[in-house]
Order: sequence, then C-alpha cells, then structure tokens
Amino acid sequence: MKYYRGCEQSIAIADVNRAVEAAFAEHGKGNVQMPPKLYITFDAGDFRTMPAYLPALDIAGVKIVNVHPGNRARGLPTVMALTVVLDVDTGLPKALINATELTAMRTGASGAVAAKYLAPKRSITLGVIGSGRQADAQVAAIADVAAVEEILVWSRTQKHAEMFAERHARYNARSVSIVRACDCDVLVTTTPSTQPLVQAAWIHEGTHINAIGADAPGKEELDPALLLRAEVFVDDREQAIHSGEINVPIRQGLYSPDDIAGTLGEVVNGTKHRSSPEAITIFDSTGLAIQDLAVARLVVDTEGGIELPFP
Amino acid sequence: MKYYRGCEQSIAIADVNRAVEAAFAEHGKGNVQMPPKLYITFDAGDFRTMPAYLPALDIAGVKIVNVHPGNRARGLPTVMALTVVLDVDTGLPKALINATELTAMRTGASGAVAAKYLAPKRSITLGVIGSGRQADAQVAAIADVAAVEEILVWSRTQKHAEMFAERHARYNARSVSIVRACDCDVLVTTTPSTQPLVQAAWIHEGTHINAIGADAPGKEELDPALLLRAEVFVDDREQAIHSGEINVPIRQGLYSPDDIAGTLGEVVNGTKHRSSPEAITIFDSTGLAIQDLAVARLVVDTEGGIELPFP
Repeated sequence: MKYYRGCEQSIAIADVNRAVEAAFAEHGKGNVQMPPKLYITFDAGDFRTMPAYLPALDIAGVKIVNVHPGNRARGLPTVMALTVVLDVDTGLPKALINATELTAMRTGASGAVAAKYLAPKRSITLGVIGSGRQADAQVAAIADVAAVEEILVWSRTQKHAEMFAERHARYNARSVSIVRACDCDVLVTTTPSTQPLVQAAWIHEGTHINAIGADAPGKEELDPALLLRAEVFVDDREQAIHSGEINVPIRQGLYSPDDIAGTLGEVVNGTKHRSSPEAITIFDSTGLAIQDLAVARLVVDTEGGIELPFP
Repeated sequence: MKYYRGCEQSIAIADVNRAVEAAFAEHGKGNVQMPPKLYITFDAGDFRTMPAYLPALDIAGVKIVNVHPGNRARGLPTVMALTVVLDVDTGLPKALINATELTAMRTGASGAVAAKYLAPKRSITLGVIGSGRQADAQVAAIADVAAVEEILVWSRTQKHAEMFAERHARYNARSVSIVRACDCDVLVTTTPSTQPLVQAAWIHEGTHINAIGADAPGKEELDPALLLRAEVFVDDREQAIHSGEINVPIRQGLYSPDDIAGTLGEVVNGTKHRSSPEAITIFDSTGLAIQDLAVARLVVDTEGGIELPFP
C-alpha cells in the first residue's frame, strides 16, 4: 500500500480531461458501479463517501471528501479529499491519495468535456460566476479544449474578481457585472449559492452553461425558468435529482426529472446532443466517484508514493 | 494525518468490548449517523463502504472492507479493512488505520455484548459452528464477559475443528458433531454458509445464539423455524433486513421485519430484553460502522502512528 500526495504538478490537464472523458463514456454505456454518494453532517460541515468501480480502467475505490465552510479561518481548505484505491482482484487497499487538488481538477475536467461536446463554438468568450479554486480549475480545463479569447468574471466580492482577472490575464480576463458576464458563449457558475444568481433573461441563444456550484440539497445558482428554457444534461441522474442544480426546482415542483435531456456520458457517446445551434445547454455537475477514480489511475501511474506496511 | 498498523496486541479485549458496548448504547438512543453500508461487487469478491458519525465519542469516518474468498490461495486474508477517521470540526482526514484485525475484534466484541445481556447464565458451555478467525474472536471476547467452562466446536472440515480445539484447550474445547455443539448455553455461528446449518430441533430452551456469519444478501446459517421460535435482536434493523441472518427468510416470506424483537442497542439501554429464562434469543450481527469507529478511537489513543504529509 502506498500513500500519494496527489500533486497537481505531476499530471497534465490534458491527461485529466482525457481520463475523465473516458470515465463518462463508460458511465454513458452503463459500465460502472457507482451508488449515489452518502452524506454525513456535522455542526460545522459535512462529508461525503463515494465508492465506485470502473471495470474498463480496472480501478475501484472510494473518495471521501468534506465541506467545512469555516475552515479558511483555521488555515485549512474548505474542501479536502482522500481517495482509497482497492485492488480489484484481491480487495487489497493499494493506494491512498490526497485528492484535495485532484478533486478541483476532475471537476474542471468534467466542465471541459461538457464544453467540448455541448458548446456550439470552438473559439469562445468565457463567462465566469464566482472566483474561487473551482473557477480557476474550469478555466484551466476548458482552455485545453477550446480557444478562450476573453474571460468575463463576476464575483460577489469585486476584489476577488479583480484578482481572478489578474491570474487569467493571458485570456483577456476582466471583472464585469453579473449581467455582462452572462453575455458569453460558455458560462461557468461556481458559487456556493442557495439562491438563483443567473436570471433567464440574461442568457442568449446558443450559450452553454456549466452549473458546477450546486452539489448538495438546497444549493442552486440558476433561475428555474432558465432550466425550463434549456436542455439540461446531468452527470448522473440520481445524484443530480438529489443534490444538483435541479434539486431545489424539483422539490418546488418547478422542474421534473422527465425534463432532463440526458447525461454527459450519453453526450460523449453520441446518443444525446444539443438539438440546434440556438439551443441553450446546461451541464449540471454534482461530481462523480468515477471521475475521482479516473484521476487516481493517473496519479498511481505517474507519481512516486510512500510505502506503508499493509496488510 | 497518521497511519496506524492496527496491531491487536496494542489494545485490550476488555477495552474493545467496553467501547463497542458504548457505541451500541448510542445507537440504541438514536444518537448516531450511520447510513446502511454500500456494496460494490467484483468477479472475485466485493467491498463494502461504511461511513458513520458517533457524536458521543467525537469520532467520524469510513471503514472500507473487502471479501475475496479466493485470497487465501494468494497468501492474503479473505477480509481486509481500512478505516479513515475524519476530524469532526474540520473534516481533515486525521487517521488511516489498518482495520483487518480490528474488524475481527469488534465483531467478537458485539457477540460479547450480546452474550452479556442476553445469555441467561454467566457460567457457560459455548457452542461454536465454524472454526476460522471470527470463531477465535468470539471466544476471546465472550471469555471476557462470561466464565467459559467448556467449548464444543464443529467445522465442516474436522481437522480445522480439532486445530481450533487445541488453540482453546484452556476452555476444555473439543471437536464434536454439529448436533452436539448446539447443545450449549451460548452458540456462535461464524460460517459463510448460504444454507441453514443449525436446525430448530437441536436448540434447547434458554439458549442464546450469536448469528455472525450472515452479513450479505443470500447468506444464512439458521433454520428459519428457529427464528420464529426465538426472540431476534438485530444490530441494525435496515442492515439486518438487507444482509443479516433474517435476509433470506424475509425474501422467502418466512419471516417478517415485524417479528424483530429489538436492537442490541435497545438491549444495552434496558428498553428491550429477553422475555424469560426459557426463551431462545438470537443476536443477528451484520457489523456496524460505529463499532469500527469505537475501536478506531482506541487505536488512535494508544498506538503510535506513521506521520504522513496532508493536506
């Protein structure tokens, strides 16, 4: 059994995007085992347990990831993650991986896969709502699959948006109003909001949206009217209904699971797609354990680990 | 974050019994979070993911445990386990524990707790069906809570039963027929059987049975007629219905969840108990994540760990 530090420096974004795309392809074919993630809640946060098995990559395991909003004040990341990889043939735990950075990368990668297949253009203006770690990860991953000509960023705290724009100056990034940020080809939303931020009227035809922030019951970033106007592709039906962008509108009776256009895996496999260049498409991301396993495979294959005595 | 080898030498059986009893008491009061374990299946075996939170012990985490019946031929244990402990206040993974031996000990401990509260006598003849690692663990744990005057062991392979009897010579252990082994005060069944082995007619009044082997759908060791004649206490209702001794009879319509007499936690708390000295009682064990966390707390408090870089 080895412990891996999961350094993002040791794996290439293009490889992560490819691995995550392969995992979604398997998911779209129904070739994975992945029960919906389990939530345990604390006063100060929660943690999620995400087991899966990806036979095509010969990898199985569990990601464990917390969300503790008060951690920044303690000098710790809000989200930390650990992935345990088991040997398929013997069940031996063979790798323990610090998956904190990898979690950000694999979520970015799912946005890149969605943009690759659902955005109607290859040369894009990228709108970004929120300016934290995941906003950075979306930019890095999407820039691998599309030519990012301009970035329009909005964040609740303008200073943070300006710092984000500086970090992404090579893509002509600038801090703008939320309405202006929505006037783009690909929009990514990455906030922890529990209220719709993006109004339906602000989004023009042909826009693709990666709705990333909502990943737990009660969270939402998009006007429910926008969901009804758009073609919504989820990462996983069961998880999205429980905790994705559509979870609150479904509970409120404003959206029905029958309205879901398909899964990202089906899009990758070509069985589902945007209906026309004018359609608005939304990728509703909750984060899948198979994405974590796909990235874990890269880490085990490229990074040196620390040997631990087991069994 | 520290890695612990989980050596059984470093913790005392009496402490494990006490910790597991405390965990069941919390479970009986409804003071735990513990979703039913998730199963992932392979061609060669399976693994189970078991998250939980025990507020009274300020401990939360996940046990991951496999069952690969072909492992012995590869020189590996059939069952191996790893427990990840998370800090409740920050979600930081603070301990990784080799839980292979600890899993056997905490299962033994639940049998000891059941025998302590449900066996009508303190000085006992112990019947043992099966002679593997868990049979040893049951003996060690029960001997801490009762005077074991004699052990009657039966195993499918007589040679294994004889070796077991030698290991437990200080308790006057001897290899006998299965019918003879059932003529005892406390019976423990620890086989991987998928067919009833113990017939109702062989069990006399006042016997307490720890039914340990059945911990997955399709497994059973006891004649369903025995379940109906007895008072069945489960470790956890949902898990027992899904994968405990009662799972097959329930699926066959021979037993109803309404027939369950209570949980071990309720027995520990005194809200449920055997109805008379003549009753036959059964403890249906599936194994709970809170038992693993209770033992993890002991390990972290007593064993030196290997420091690992995280986050």
